[in-house]
Amino acid sequence: MENPLIIGVMGGGLADPRDAKAAYRLGSLIAEQGWILLNGGRNAGVMAASAKGARENGGLTVGILPDDSPHAVCPFIQIPILTGMGNARNCINVLSSHIVVACPGGTGTISEIALALKSSRPVILMNFNVKDMFERYLKKEMLFWAETPEEVIATIRQIFKKAGKL
Amino acid sequence: MENPLIIGVMGGGLADPRDAKAAYRLGSLIAEQGWILLNGGRNAGVMAASAKGARENGGLTVGILPDDSPHAVCPFIQIPILTGMGNARNCINVLSSHIVVACPGGTGTISEIALALKSSRPVILMNFNVKDMFERYLKKEMLFWAETPEEVIATIRQIFKKAGKL
Amino acid sequence: MENPLIIGVMGGGLADPRDAKAAYRLGSLIAEQGWILLNGGRNAGVMAASAKGARENGGLTVGILPDDSPHAVCPFIQIPILTGMGNARNCINVLSSHIVVACPGGTGTISEIALALKSSRPVILMNFNVKDMFERYLKKEMLFWAETPEEVIATIRQIFKKAGKL
Amino acid sequence: MENPLIIGVMGGGLADPRDAKAAYRLGSLIAEQGWILLNGGRNAGVMAASAKGARENGGLTVGILPDDSPHAVCPFIQIPILTGMGNARNCINVLSSHIVVACPGGTGTISEIALALKSSRPVILMNFNVKDMFERYLKKEMLFWAETPEEVIATIRQIFKKAGKL
Repeated sequence: MENPLIIGVMGGGLADPRDAKAAYRLGSLIAEQGWILLNGGRNAGVMAASAKGARENGGLTVGILPDDSPHAVCPFIQIPILTGMGNARNCINVLSSHIVVACPGGTGTISEIALALKSSRPVILMNFNVKDMFERYLKKEMLFWAETPEEVIATIRQIFKKAGKL
Repeated sequence: MENPLIIGVMGGGLADPRDAKAAYRLGSLIAEQGWILLNGGRNAGVMAASAKGARENGGLTVGILPDDSPHAVCPFIQIPILTGMGNARNCINVLSSHIVVACPGGTGTISEIALALKSSRPVILMNFNVKDMFERYLKKEMLFWAETPEEVIATIRQIFKKAGKL
Repeated sequence: MENPLIIGVMGGGLADPRDAKAAYRLGSLIAEQGWILLNGGRNAGVMAASAKGARENGGLTVGILPDDSPHAVCPFIQIPILTGMGNARNCINVLSSHIVVACPGGTGTISEIALALKSSRPVILMNFNVKDMFERYLKKEMLFWAETPEEVIATIRQIFKKAGKL
Repeated sequence: MENPLIIGVMGGGLADPRDAKAAYRLGSLIAEQGWILLNGGRNAGVMAASAKGARENGGLTVGILPDDSPHAVCPFIQIPILTGMGNARNCINVLSSHIVVACPGGTGTISEIALALKSSRPVILMNFNVKDMFERYLKKEMLFWAETPEEVIATIRQIFKKAGKL
């Protein structure tokens, strides 16, 4: 495993069935590409769904937990990083990801989009419509829009190719 | 000084003259109320303007710095808290504030609005139009809109009264 | 208040009566000098005693809390900084202090001594005998030993004078 | 890979040849056991040596970096977690490890021993003689002493067996 690429998948701790299904599919496609999936690590919503998708397709999963104990870790996370730092772990989520995918979520996910852009990590919004707030990053090609997991993967590949990483 | 109230003033490291003037005015009014002003502590933009306003009117100013050394501290900050944690200090900014005022800014300020709401700290937007993204918090009376520093103070007083803190 | 000097007082959450008395006395002397007292902010042990000593003698007290809510804050802390970061706040304690005084404590206090020295903050041990472990810092005049609060103050004054801060 | 066990290997950024050799050997033995090696991730001292040992023997390596960019990452770290939090990442190092091994080091390593014990993570000292400072943890069987990498592995296996993890 040489310099594996790490894809951060952010999104709500609560996910409706459609979003959970898309997160699962996204996780499975990330695994198929041989990329590492990184998320917030809790056993809920987009985190649990995307980790399950990656693991059931042979991927490696890393979770950055807000907690200082392993009780809330999603069982599909292989490498739980326990920070004990609450929401401050959101910064670690985005710094540690080559590219961040934001699935529908709440204020936590919005904070991660903002922090990722501030730290120059490209962000792909998968059906999470907060484009207006970050419009100038669309123009700078730091922020992207996708409607399906397949489109997300295509966009990631395009970004990595442009950066000479694929 | 019994249980002083702490008002967090967030906003861009770059501020146009109109926003800087409003931030200065806001700082001075916070000082007049006997409240502590807390911000990101750097010598730039809304941070420097609001700290100057508070200090020149006898207020106490606390800055939560991203750095681990005092070189970038605004001279109008009396109590610099050096975190050495980069953007993770944004979490501390909002957790330590009874109420957060968001002046116009960029991704850092948006992350602070999101983190404040996630941590149940009321947020007042002073001419920073990101209402759409956080609409449901307007309805829950966690997010407020103000156009002038005077309106901000009136809104803070109203929130504190409702919470039995004034 | 121009560029106030900040003295960090670290020590156990449990303190025997003798250590608590010394911590109270130390807090009162820090206040008399016009310095700010900074500690871990909880309502226990050396933290509570030193904050009480400072406040009852007109000093200003800052507490850097591990928690994300104000429930455990010592009532003698005027400015509680809520980090929500658990022990990671120990780094902030020492970075934000011009000089760190270590009263008797446990592993938390030892971590703060180590982190302070690593970050080039001078440390004064007040009757906390961990000199052997940090011996080379004694020789480098980064680590000092004192037996009474009065000796601590004299040592702080000496360090500040040498650094041109008094 | 079911619930992999994570061994934290701490130690100096500067290591003499003997300590570097032992760290390399320790990393290789950890890999042979099928455990994940976690360390501070920088390309220096005990971190680089232990990561190299693990990787060259087929192990998985995780590094928790103080930096917010990948420039200083050791090439033998497969999963770099970029925290951007300086020494505060020491807390994450120990919270994320089932067991912490402390090789000879300086103040950073001492802070990690102290933080690990505070967070109830067992610590094995490999030729790093700071036993006196933490004596009561020896008696509580939270702190152990080993002179060789082989002894470290035997001690880890014993701890895991007692905890029902092997």
